[in-house]
Amino acid sequence: MPSLGQTMLGEEGIIQRYFAPLAAGYPGAHGLRDDAAVVAPPPGHDLVVTVDAVAAGVHFFPDDTPADIGWKALAVNVSDLVAKGATPHAYVMSLAFPEPPSADWLAGFASGLAEAQAAFGLHLIGGDTDRRSGPVAITITAFGFVPTGAMCRRGAARAGDIIFVSGTLGDSALGLRVRGGQAEVAAWGLSDDHRAHLVARYLRPLPRVALAPVLIAHACAAMDISDGLLKDLGRMAAASGVGATVQLDELPLSAAARYVLRTDLATWRDIAAGGDDYEVLACVAPERAALFLAAAKAVGVEVQAIGRVNAGRSLELLDRVGQPVQYVQMGYDHF
Amino acid sequence: MPSLGQTMLGEEGIIQRYFAPLAAGYPGAHGLRDDAAVVAPPPGHDLVVTVDAVAAGVHFFPDDTPADIGWKALAVNVSDLVAKGATPHAYVMSLAFPEPPSADWLAGFASGLAEAQAAFGLHLIGGDTDRRSGPVAITITAFGFVPTGAMCRRGAARAGDIIFVSGTLGDSALGLRVRGGQAEVAAWGLSDDHRAHLVARYLRPLPRVALAPVLIAHACAAMDISDGLLKDLGRMAAASGVGATVQLDELPLSAAARYVLRTDLATWRDIAAGGDDYEVLACVAPERAALFLAAAKAVGVEVQAIGRVNAGRSLELLDRVGQPVQYVQMGYDHF
Repeated sequence: MPSLGQTMLGEEGIIQRYFAPLAAGYPGAHGLRDDAAVVAPPPGHDLVVTVDAVAAGVHFFPDDTPADIGWKALAVNVSDLVAKGATPHAYVMSLAFPEPPSADWLAGFASGLAEAQAAFGLHLIGGDTDRRSGPVAITITAFGFVPTGAMCRRGAARAGDIIFVSGTLGDSALGLRVRGGQAEVAAWGLSDDHRAHLVARYLRPLPRVALAPVLIAHACAAMDISDGLLKDLGRMAAASGVGATVQLDELPLSAAARYVLRTDLATWRDIAAGGDDYEVLACVAPERAALFLAAAKAVGVEVQAIGRVNAGRSLELLDRVGQPVQYVQMGYDHF
Repeated sequence: MPSLGQTMLGEEGIIQRYFAPLAAGYPGAHGLRDDAAVVAPPPGHDLVVTVDAVAAGVHFFPDDTPADIGWKALAVNVSDLVAKGATPHAYVMSLAFPEPPSADWLAGFASGLAEAQAAFGLHLIGGDTDRRSGPVAITITAFGFVPTGAMCRRGAARAGDIIFVSGTLGDSALGLRVRGGQAEVAAWGLSDDHRAHLVARYLRPLPRVALAPVLIAHACAAMDISDGLLKDLGRMAAASGVGATVQLDELPLSAAARYVLRTDLATWRDIAAGGDDYEVLACVAPERAALFLAAAKAVGVEVQAIGRVNAGRSLELLDRVGQPVQYVQMGYDHF
């Protein structure tokens, strides 16, 4: 975060100028002038709660635009809600800054949050701002609603289920390499459009909000893909006590990712295990697969069958002729 | 945090070994094995939400015991809930570590959280763990319940209300100076008991959970005192559009704080503005004051009238003979 300057506003001034407008549409936020917010789930609904932090140098580049940082901080939380079948509703945010942020940075950050709020349908309702050493960090706790008892679980996949993913995989992991200016990227020979597509997917994840009710209606199990398909599918299989077979050839790819994969076959690992996809991974009983596909299409979200749940305990990857592909466990672990 | 060692457990291993036991009593936490938790307020109740982060070197000493750190991280959030009249229910926690914490540190930290959970009546239901540079930081979002529409507001004090505080003030601010080993502290000539009392109040805040329903029944306005009485009362007065007069002589003091004040008169500023009290500040209509006092006594919480709300716009401090005391604005601001 370059050129931080003293804002002279103080903590409460910052909250009122930059963040209170993000809470204006939510009565229970009390204009961010109280010590707590009030949330009332509608009758017949549970509140779904998730928390995710992003920090400069770990989850985003310190010189990403503040609007992109704001968008991403909220989007990664909305992704968790949506994959649980929850309709996004509200969030609280805890900010840590090593130095007082500049007015420009705060204005840009708030504008990115405002864009994401409008896109995903939720409101800021409370927060906390601290100054401490270390990277800029944004911790968001997000709330959504599901019909009582209906939250899509990670551990409820059953042998025979068809494994679906939304959107396309790997764009964000490839976009990260483009954004980071890695040497190999030049050899990919990307067009400007492809570069822009991949970087945008990294900077501005697009959780599939419209898919939430479709998951509630048709999925046995669901979670978001944030640490790479293979790692997250492995978690889902372990939590469900099942195995899974994935047809690598069926992974949905954007035109840009297909182009990269053609010139650099090793990027299949970025696609299958690179992380930051923020797409939905869902298991659907075979007899409901057609309904699930039709309902997803009706809400405008692409979903693709990529494999099957089985009664084993392992995760098997098959190439286009059905041969097992060797791989070592991949994906991001903080420790 | 001294002598961090590699735990070899990985993020999920850490969660399952140290934190899942803290969630065992709450079905909606799904054993911390899912991506989100489920909360269902009882019929006729709102969910109250608050978020507060604590960081090493800012809110606690890096070499405080991990059990004390865990206790405090949760207690400061419970304090906000209680002052809003909410009965504590559940919390999610986001952890940031610059290095993998040692098994001993994690075990101690979890034990402090477990003690605080038992004392305050709430459960861990979800979380997030990241590794990044900077201090150890713990961000907690806590949830409580109030009867629908009944949350105690900061901005609802009215001219004529009597201003009450719970417990005693200043112990924590004085305890911080003792804990920090400041040179002036030697001159206070404290007994071991008094030292221990003050430091314990700093390390282990005791939010007045039993007072929550009393506030709902009798208070016009309430908030917790975390940044010093004068700053927080100033906020309450500003939010309510009123003024306030405080009798400094009426501030409730522990035996230890009285002893310090006798030898070092300048410590009245620590007492009135030092922060970290985590007591309740409440405004009660005069006709309900006797009921409030009786109800507080019935639940075993000491409360003390310290002044009056008035129709002005300023905060006036009076000494024991009714003379105004000059002071400059004090209390903690992060920016």
